[in-house]
Amino acid sequence: MDIDQANATAVEHMMESRPILRGVAAAREVIPGMQEDLLLHAGPPIEWERMSGPLRGAVIGALLFEGRARDEQAAAALAQSGRIRFEPCHHHDAVGPMAGVISPSMAVYVLEDSTHGRKTFSNLNEGYGKVLRYGAFSAEVLQRLRWMNETLGPAIGRALEGDEGLDLRATMAEALHMGDEGHNRNKAGSLLFLRFLAPRLARLNLPEAERAEVLRFLGDNALSILNPVMAACKAMTLAGHGIAGSTVVTVMARNGTDFGIRVSGLGDAWFTAPADVPVGLYFPGFSEADANPDIGDSAITETAGIGGFAMATAPAIVTFVGGTPRDAMNATLEMYEITVAEHKIFTMPSLDFRGTPTGIDLRKVVELGITPRINTGIAHRQAGVGQVGAGLVRPPMAMFEEALVAFAEKYELGN
Amino acid sequence: MDIDQANATAVEHMMESRPILRGVAAAREVIPGMQEDLLLHAGPPIEWERMSGPLRGAVIGALLFEGRARDEQAAAALAQSGRIRFEPCHHHDAVGPMAGVISPSMAVYVLEDSTHGRKTFSNLNEGYGKVLRYGAFSAEVLQRLRWMNETLGPAIGRALEGDEGLDLRATMAEALHMGDEGHNRNKAGSLLFLRFLAPRLARLNLPEAERAEVLRFLGDNALSILNPVMAACKAMTLAGHGIAGSTVVTVMARNGTDFGIRVSGLGDAWFTAPADVPVGLYFPGFSEADANPDIGDSAITETAGIGGFAMATAPAIVTFVGGTPRDAMNATLEMYEITVAEHKIFTMPSLDFRGTPTGIDLRKVVELGITPRINTGIAHRQAGVGQVGAGLVRPPMAMFEEALVAFAEKYELGN
Repeated sequence: MDIDQANATAVEHMMESRPILRGVAAAREVIPGMQEDLLLHAGPPIEWERMSGPLRGAVIGALLFEGRARDEQAAAALAQSGRIRFEPCHHHDAVGPMAGVISPSMAVYVLEDSTHGRKTFSNLNEGYGKVLRYGAFSAEVLQRLRWMNETLGPAIGRALEGDEGLDLRATMAEALHMGDEGHNRNKAGSLLFLRFLAPRLARLNLPEAERAEVLRFLGDNALSILNPVMAACKAMTLAGHGIAGSTVVTVMARNGTDFGIRVSGLGDAWFTAPADVPVGLYFPGFSEADANPDIGDSAITETAGIGGFAMATAPAIVTFVGGTPRDAMNATLEMYEITVAEHKIFTMPSLDFRGTPTGIDLRKVVELGITPRINTGIAHRQAGVGQVGAGLVRPPMAMFEEALVAFAEKYELGN
Repeated sequence: MDIDQANATAVEHMMESRPILRGVAAAREVIPGMQEDLLLHAGPPIEWERMSGPLRGAVIGALLFEGRARDEQAAAALAQSGRIRFEPCHHHDAVGPMAGVISPSMAVYVLEDSTHGRKTFSNLNEGYGKVLRYGAFSAEVLQRLRWMNETLGPAIGRALEGDEGLDLRATMAEALHMGDEGHNRNKAGSLLFLRFLAPRLARLNLPEAERAEVLRFLGDNALSILNPVMAACKAMTLAGHGIAGSTVVTVMARNGTDFGIRVSGLGDAWFTAPADVPVGLYFPGFSEADANPDIGDSAITETAGIGGFAMATAPAIVTFVGGTPRDAMNATLEMYEITVAEHKIFTMPSLDFRGTPTGIDLRKVVELGITPRINTGIAHRQAGVGQVGAGLVRPPMAMFEEALVAFAEKYELGN
């Protein structure tokens, strides 16, 4: 068996994937397998009992949002009653940042991979401050979610109707030339998203105050494109998944308790280990003692070759995640050690337009002892608080080792 | 006399200048000294007889636009009749890219320096292709100018009414962290401009098609903020002008025939020399043989410490002006040799957030034999054609030598 050839195929499929943002719809209408008693969440599978504070907070918020409970206590009781099922977003070709909770009536982005035809999904970004994805569920949080469902989502959805849609791969490539790494820094990409939407929103018959509100919300949120970018990265890695004999990692995701990965040649199996607390910069008044272990599906960006892997093109990000511009350059250079290819589309001017390190090779991670570099936000460990910082995390090596053993067993290598 | 102290003062004034975009109005209503028989142009003073093709083309276009002539021949005859006066934009605290022609009825941006109180002006950017600033004057060019005067300008003007305005210095600083150098590359800045305008335009009572058209025009034009940026740079350099004993260069400008500079401690005197042809990349079908000598007021960006001086933060620009990212880094490093200060507000992540080289010191230019580096567009040498490329130009050393002699005479140095 030629593992290198299988990996080359997997990465080629990833790079050929061309996800287009097509629309916005309620999760129940578009996400395969979505059901009324189901909540999707970030990371590998987990039950209520083992959920961390921010994921519990987001579950509570989602149940309040859905009108399934009247208050926090009732929502928590319902969540642990067994009458609500929990499944990873990744089991439904969806992704969500941080807690990543998607409930049936939530508006989600619909992307279609124009090369491979598959659809992927993500929720809409809420902006900063107290937000569901960081486990906050106050009245303000729920009110914003309702506004997103009733105003923002439908407006974007209508703007996309009958349109060619937004080419996420091209937009991400452009943003990488404008100082974004596409995970923690999405300033340029979000402005490109705004540029795409503004004239299309202008054509809609919308109340002026509502249109101004939508444009201001999108403009003020330098993460507005993060969720479509994540869904695009999901499409890309999905395209590289399922190649027999490939050791390319196609999912890295965290639920706040466990870190989990999936591997192209290993089907639907999750390999998990306890998630670590990120190292980074904390907002005033917070420290590592407040931090929840690593959480979110957003590591799909690094899995697709951007985010922490593209730090060299985003030196300004160090003011947010810590370190120096030299560290940022070195982060990218290190990731070439554990990847299969240099991206054909995602290039970095500061490295003479070299492609980003793409396609994490399980074998290299274990052989070299270098784990992938992941940029991330940091959530407070208690439900209801929110973001306390941002920084860097490395996934636990144990998962990769376990996956490599499973790979050797499945393909009967060295036995 | 302490020249170093005078230069420190001049540069301090430049960096403290905080220009705010306040509005849009007809040139005749707001530009001091604007008159019905007057056309403003880029660069130092020049008469019709010595004007190059693109400047003549823009003059012809402006006279057609103003309804002062019915066709090209009549416009050229009027221009050389002596009944039209020509004065530099710089004599009126205004600036314009390339030909830089501003006629009485043209919509212009009005900026106010909130630190020093002075107003500066620029015309509106026309986008790409056949445009007046490159000397084109076809029906299509004039139609676009009319649309800009009747639709775009008034819409932006109304959006700014009763508003706090756009802080150009802050916006430029942000754009420098997003891969712009602020002269040839203004992609990020133009998106930040769109982000500022979009919700404000949404509030206006405008026909939907018109609003969509304005948003699309602004979004499609990655130079839309260039002209406000130039007017901001004019405000900054104006703030540093007129400091007794200062050798800081406060104007660099080209009219397509002559390059001219002004110096802080030397009042209104121009020092000029023949303009050179830029070195750069040409559009398909064109070569250096088609190129006009250097033209435009846009070198005000380098004079204020951005543009070619900030190349290190904009490695992607080399695909447009030529060279490698390493050359771009070296360009900035070289400019530190001839400047007085590192900018307090304009910083470059890739150089560990070092400030851009700011305040060209006449003495250093002459002593070290290093002329300022200027990024620029390249116009066809014939009227009516347009842009043929983009690249790099160095101003003639002779002007700096002449200015240094004048400085020595005025301040009785070494005599």
